[in-house]
Amino acid sequence: MAETILTSQEFDRRMTAAQEVVRKNGLDAILVFSTESEPAAVRYFSDYWPSFETAAVLIPAAGAPALIIGPESLTFASSRSRIAKIIQLMDFRESSQPEYPGSTLPKWEDVVTEYKLKRIGLCNWYLFPYVMMTELARAMGGIGNVIPADALIRPLFMKKSAAEVACLRASARASEAGFKAILENIRPGMTESELCGIATAAMTAAGAECTGYPIWCCSGPNSDQAISRPTMRKIRCGEIVHFSIGAKVEGYSSSIGRPVVLGHCPDEIRKFLQVGLDAANMTFDVMRAGVKSGDAARKVHDFIKAQGYGDAILYGPAHGCGQMECEYPFLETSSEYMLEADMTFMQDMFLHRKGMGFRWEDGLLVKAAGPAEMLSSYGRKINII
Amino acid sequence: MAETILTSQEFDRRMTAAQEVVRKNGLDAILVFSTESEPAAVRYFSDYWPSFETAAVLIPAAGAPALIIGPESLTFASSRSRIAKIIQLMDFRESSQPEYPGSTLPKWEDVVTEYKLKRIGLCNWYLFPYVMMTELARAMGGIGNVIPADALIRPLFMKKSAAEVACLRASARASEAGFKAILENIRPGMTESELCGIATAAMTAAGAECTGYPIWCCSGPNSDQAISRPTMRKIRCGEIVHFSIGAKVEGYSSSIGRPVVLGHCPDEIRKFLQVGLDAANMTFDVMRAGVKSGDAARKVHDFIKAQGYGDAILYGPAHGCGQMECEYPFLETSSEYMLEADMTFMQDMFLHRKGMGFRWEDGLLVKAAGPAEMLSSYGRKINII
Repeated sequence: MAETILTSQEFDRRMTAAQEVVRKNGLDAILVFSTESEPAAVRYFSDYWPSFETAAVLIPAAGAPALIIGPESLTFASSRSRIAKIIQLMDFRESSQPEYPGSTLPKWEDVVTEYKLKRIGLCNWYLFPYVMMTELARAMGGIGNVIPADALIRPLFMKKSAAEVACLRASARASEAGFKAILENIRPGMTESELCGIATAAMTAAGAECTGYPIWCCSGPNSDQAISRPTMRKIRCGEIVHFSIGAKVEGYSSSIGRPVVLGHCPDEIRKFLQVGLDAANMTFDVMRAGVKSGDAARKVHDFIKAQGYGDAILYGPAHGCGQMECEYPFLETSSEYMLEADMTFMQDMFLHRKGMGFRWEDGLLVKAAGPAEMLSSYGRKINII
Repeated sequence: MAETILTSQEFDRRMTAAQEVVRKNGLDAILVFSTESEPAAVRYFSDYWPSFETAAVLIPAAGAPALIIGPESLTFASSRSRIAKIIQLMDFRESSQPEYPGSTLPKWEDVVTEYKLKRIGLCNWYLFPYVMMTELARAMGGIGNVIPADALIRPLFMKKSAAEVACLRASARASEAGFKAILENIRPGMTESELCGIATAAMTAAGAECTGYPIWCCSGPNSDQAISRPTMRKIRCGEIVHFSIGAKVEGYSSSIGRPVVLGHCPDEIRKFLQVGLDAANMTFDVMRAGVKSGDAARKVHDFIKAQGYGDAILYGPAHGCGQMECEYPFLETSSEYMLEADMTFMQDMFLHRKGMGFRWEDGLLVKAAGPAEMLSSYGRKINII
């Protein structure tokens, strides 16, 4: 196995802290659920992340935790899991619902009996399938014995350890390598998808395990899309082409958002891009420990409005990041929480107007004093090529 | 917009057929749900596929269908959707749960009222979140008014149209380009992730919109993993390195599974690989229209057992494919359905024993007469480099 940034001590620390949360809240266990596209919580505790199938981690008040997986992932999970005990349940199989003739996997009832579960918390409550909840609730003697626990566990995720920050820095380096490959290879006539492929190859060559999310490139009329998927559209000169690309390193993802213009950049576009970049830079300055989150968000949005672009705001100007490129909490004008040292965000400035838009985005680490640290900065300027 | 294989007539045909199913079953509508990693059903009807957020298609018994999306995907969805009407609901927001201060999106109640829904079917029942079901059931006046509808809609997916087969063929060509790039570039010391990046770049340069699923490479001790994710492990000579790579073209994904050995291949490994390849080839021969699925599966598994490798079988020997690389139905020894012309599968032969394993996989089209057609064949041999 290659050397890793995250040690077994780091995973022990996380589990110990979570078990303390379980006990403090008078629960018998917390069950943490994840899917292929929402792998964060299970990976946080186990280093395993599912594909095709789903997964969960059962964190009991005391004693040994268990990783719960589907019928086909045993060798995969065994090679990754920092949790020794692995339970396979049919409910965690893939969506094509194979029958696995002859299989004799345990059931939720067996897990409930073994762990003597009477009242449990559930994390990723928002994702948990109805079918699985029905089975779990039956085994638990009623849905009232399963309570939402995201708010209980979130404090563990909100401030990052030194090892987590190191993973985010490594991810930011690989994301920069992806954008560098784009700047070196981009030419009119390439498709949005092709450019994403070039970035992917560069990021994995630079140490990423894969992309941190389904990365995208939006060009011309597609540029007004805040969330997107790359298309077969061929990019052209004189239009905005923007990139949202991010590498995953040991589960952590720090992303890069950049607009690029090939050839001539009309003044109207250049001015719009500059207002976005100024607002993005301001975000690093206002996000300081001890500042109320909503106050920081309002300063940035007020600046954009003062420049005459208030109608171009969609959200933000930042959101949490860690194992998910976009994780709780968002930084919004309505946010009430206080910013603290070692919280990490993506500064995420997406503006759009009249069928064109762009994103400026880089990782952001809140410091004990002074402005936030920028985790990536390569090519953070108006790129006209 | 680039030219597409799938025409608006194709999408009209699908919607007309689905509305017929709604009426025949005495329902007011069918709601089809999808997520970032399970995008198939929504894309089938709308050509839109979500990222970060979730999505659904509401298919009423008569009148105009609606695409349902989250707060941030309007410009993205508007640019892709073949369904004109788009509804945004807060329940479809991303898992980081932003608040979107000032937002005034409609609620499930508004949808139920507008479409006069009293009894609806739900597709991807297995994925539908508990939280969303609670809100939907409340709006519908009780969970009893929402019934599982996957079995009702599946007949539409099981046999592919000429356009769908064309998409799968185009996907198979791009997947072959990915494997070609691997054979041309693979060297000892490369990481599993790096090799996946090389395949991704080659596939997108060859016309793929992206990968069809999170592709992987497993080497040495990792090779016994049927489902996996690529790691930072550096590949070596004399060990099995196997690839599961697949391109997505207009939503369709035909994958390629191949083992590769660098340098000397020990006889024991060569014999094991050959039994797998023989079983994989046999799968194309036995999957014929009019044959019962379970009978075909048993023939292949009986062959493997006769060669003395019965203990190496994990599943299979095939599973449905289309918009999901792995979609309903699996071909298992317990399967009861009849094979019919124009059904498409992935022939998927994964064998593992004593800490090593491999996959042979290619797209498979059941023909009206004779053996099945192989959708990709590039490098379908024991590759010792």
